[in-house]
Amino acid sequence: MAPDRLPNPRIITLLTDFGLADTYAGQVHGAILSINLRAVIVDLTHAVEPQDVRQGAFLLQGAIPAFPDGTIHVAVVDPGVGSARRALAIETSTGWFVGPDNGVLSAALPDDARPSASTPRRVTLPAGCRAVDLVEPRYQLPVPSITFHGRDIFGPAAAYLSLGVPLEEFGPPVSSIVALPPFRARRGEDGRLQATVVVVDHFGNVVTDCRRDDLPDAAVLVTIRGRTVAGLVHTYATGSGLTALIGSSGYLEVAVPDGNAASTLGAAIGDEVIIAVGQP
Amino acid sequence: MAPDRLPNPRIITLLTDFGLADTYAGQVHGAILSINLRAVIVDLTHAVEPQDVRQGAFLLQGAIPAFPDGTIHVAVVDPGVGSARRALAIETSTGWFVGPDNGVLSAALPDDARPSASTPRRVTLPAGCRAVDLVEPRYQLPVPSITFHGRDIFGPAAAYLSLGVPLEEFGPPVSSIVALPPFRARRGEDGRLQATVVVVDHFGNVVTDCRRDDLPDAAVLVTIRGRTVAGLVHTYATGSGLTALIGSSGYLEVAVPDGNAASTLGAAIGDEVIIAVGQP
Amino acid sequence: MAPDRLPNPRIITLLTDFGLADTYAGQVHGAILSINLRAVIVDLTHAVEPQDVRQGAFLLQGAIPAFPDGTIHVAVVDPGVGSARRALAIETSTGWFVGPDNGVLSAALPDDARPSASTPRRVTLPAGCRAVDLVEPRYQLPVPSITFHGRDIFGPAAAYLSLGVPLEEFGPPVSSIVALPPFRARRGEDGRLQATVVVVDHFGNVVTDCRRDDLPDAAVLVTIRGRTVAGLVHTYATGSGLTALIGSSGYLEVAVPDGNAASTLGAAIGDEVIIAVGQP
Repeated sequence: MAPDRLPNPRIITLLTDFGLADTYAGQVHGAILSINLRAVIVDLTHAVEPQDVRQGAFLLQGAIPAFPDGTIHVAVVDPGVGSARRALAIETSTGWFVGPDNGVLSAALPDDARPSASTPRRVTLPAGCRAVDLVEPRYQLPVPSITFHGRDIFGPAAAYLSLGVPLEEFGPPVSSIVALPPFRARRGEDGRLQATVVVVDHFGNVVTDCRRDDLPDAAVLVTIRGRTVAGLVHTYATGSGLTALIGSSGYLEVAVPDGNAASTLGAAIGDEVIIAVGQP
Repeated sequence: MAPDRLPNPRIITLLTDFGLADTYAGQVHGAILSINLRAVIVDLTHAVEPQDVRQGAFLLQGAIPAFPDGTIHVAVVDPGVGSARRALAIETSTGWFVGPDNGVLSAALPDDARPSASTPRRVTLPAGCRAVDLVEPRYQLPVPSITFHGRDIFGPAAAYLSLGVPLEEFGPPVSSIVALPPFRARRGEDGRLQATVVVVDHFGNVVTDCRRDDLPDAAVLVTIRGRTVAGLVHTYATGSGLTALIGSSGYLEVAVPDGNAASTLGAAIGDEVIIAVGQP
Repeated sequence: MAPDRLPNPRIITLLTDFGLADTYAGQVHGAILSINLRAVIVDLTHAVEPQDVRQGAFLLQGAIPAFPDGTIHVAVVDPGVGSARRALAIETSTGWFVGPDNGVLSAALPDDARPSASTPRRVTLPAGCRAVDLVEPRYQLPVPSITFHGRDIFGPAAAYLSLGVPLEEFGPPVSSIVALPPFRARRGEDGRLQATVVVVDHFGNVVTDCRRDDLPDAAVLVTIRGRTVAGLVHTYATGSGLTALIGSSGYLEVAVPDGNAASTLGAAIGDEVIIAVGQP
């Protein structure tokens, strides 16, 4: 196909736990560009904690709104590579999602289609959402490895999607996929609102899975690692010391402006956070 | 607009303290590509020390000469995000600079327009240099966050500039901006030439703010952390042990060929360096 | 030249030991894009251990198959920058290789053209392979630095190659280059198969230079750091505890599924690995 006959360039994002010390991420770029030299590839991050599917799903969800409709998101956090877990491509009204069937693509689904349990679970695809099992050899590397599906299956699938290959050509339809519960605060048995630390970012900001609209309208007290922060500020610049605010992806964070909240608190992924109504 | 009617692709560089563990840098790519899919984005670095405006300004200055005229440089090291500090776009004879008004864009100005004080200061824009305050909502994300202006204001401004939107459309003109003094060695009260460590690079090379033409013509002795290095070598390969040379961006460095000067010396950003005329 | 007259875009890969904390890698992008704004640049990795030519050569070799014919690979691990070592561009039947003449480009040569000695050695270029010394000033930065040939010589050479400049224009032909022996296990004096750890990857997988076809057909025992692993598994997901397998680039690895083999073993680059025929 002559270059001027190619479809519009299309964005393919990559989110993996491959790190940047090896050439794994670069090889995925190569696999994609071998198929569509006009793909516009964006590295969301390759620093998901090794095999932390939940963190990968959270980071992907937060990044999606920055991209236009029609973007193809590839997420590879894949402890089960080479096992029987499926390789998925999901088509929604806003774009495509490609990766292993282990929950890392949960953001493809609306909240009400995700499980209410606290653990990953197989759910039925909602209306307006289709998925296939990526088994068609024509759209994989000639001899896929059994340890590197990012390069051999997921990258090529994204590249062929970016060229306009219809979803159904990649393999048989699947009607259910593994999904994580929505990232939201939970009401504990004692009535208190509970959240969990899902990300500690580069600035040491401690990001929880408590969403803006999980919070009560009243003033709140946020407790983590035995320390309590009263009230939310609007922006890092207006806080001092331990500070709580809603971060850029709409989730409650604890920060130390010009400092590092994670090291101040000794906080880490998985820590419990309690949100109560109250004044300091 | 049909692809063949789009203007030439244009380079947008990004320099931030966002790190690469989160998706912040990737989201800025998304924000830019949502507006101009043909922008050519180059990540200068996302590893500026958190909120070290001075280091960011130095790294940006060193990278500019590698890019062609017409490049759009975005620099976001922004401890004051969400405060009253302005969001700037600056147009010079060679390109554009986009970022917060805190000195990180100092390289947009010629040395003689920058302050002579040792601290950041507001200076009048010189002739041939225009700037605006990025307040026009049309060129921002629909609802900009108050904590992530890289994605919501600076990235979009760069993308619209790359599409040819004239500077004056982004907001009202500003006549003065915050700038850092030029990166140069200083003459101390005792007559000695003093410099400061501004970067410790990946190889452990200790980079100072002493410029090639700050040095006397005579042989020099470079003293740092109590160790003195005599004379400059021309290249890493010709030195051995502690070595002083002019690095690739024109500044005095102390290096250990095939070793790590920073760990040999215990040197860090901010350390004082004394340069004297003399023989070993 | 009008955009629609430009040649097809071409991939340029970069593999260096520059790290990502500085702007060095970004400056190489700038140098390339200043010459060919349509080059498609892929960062293979910038995290080769500083000045570890052997690791760089191994990582480059593993990444090449992911890229299409006609790709231009730039590898800069260059302890001798500024010394008399040559700057090379090599043309093979599958693409181009650009970098210092110190062995980092060994993957450009077929195994049987590489030395059998255990150390880097100068070898004659085989038929079908041409190389030049990059001395032609027209294809360098106007005033190349003596410490940053990645930006000033190698990047520009790759960019001009991507525009179709013929190899012979870059400088005089060279008939021999420095190369490393092939990455393969060796038969020790005691008849045992010996390999060496060349990479510890982001997951802690310990990658050796023992190739799939170096292994006997029989069951093997793999010994490293006093620990012996019996047999190979097919995929990370089917192993548990210390596990041996053939990784995605065809080399023997020791892994701990859902764990970190390097820290479990205390293993590091350069460690000896013994492979023997036998049952547990």
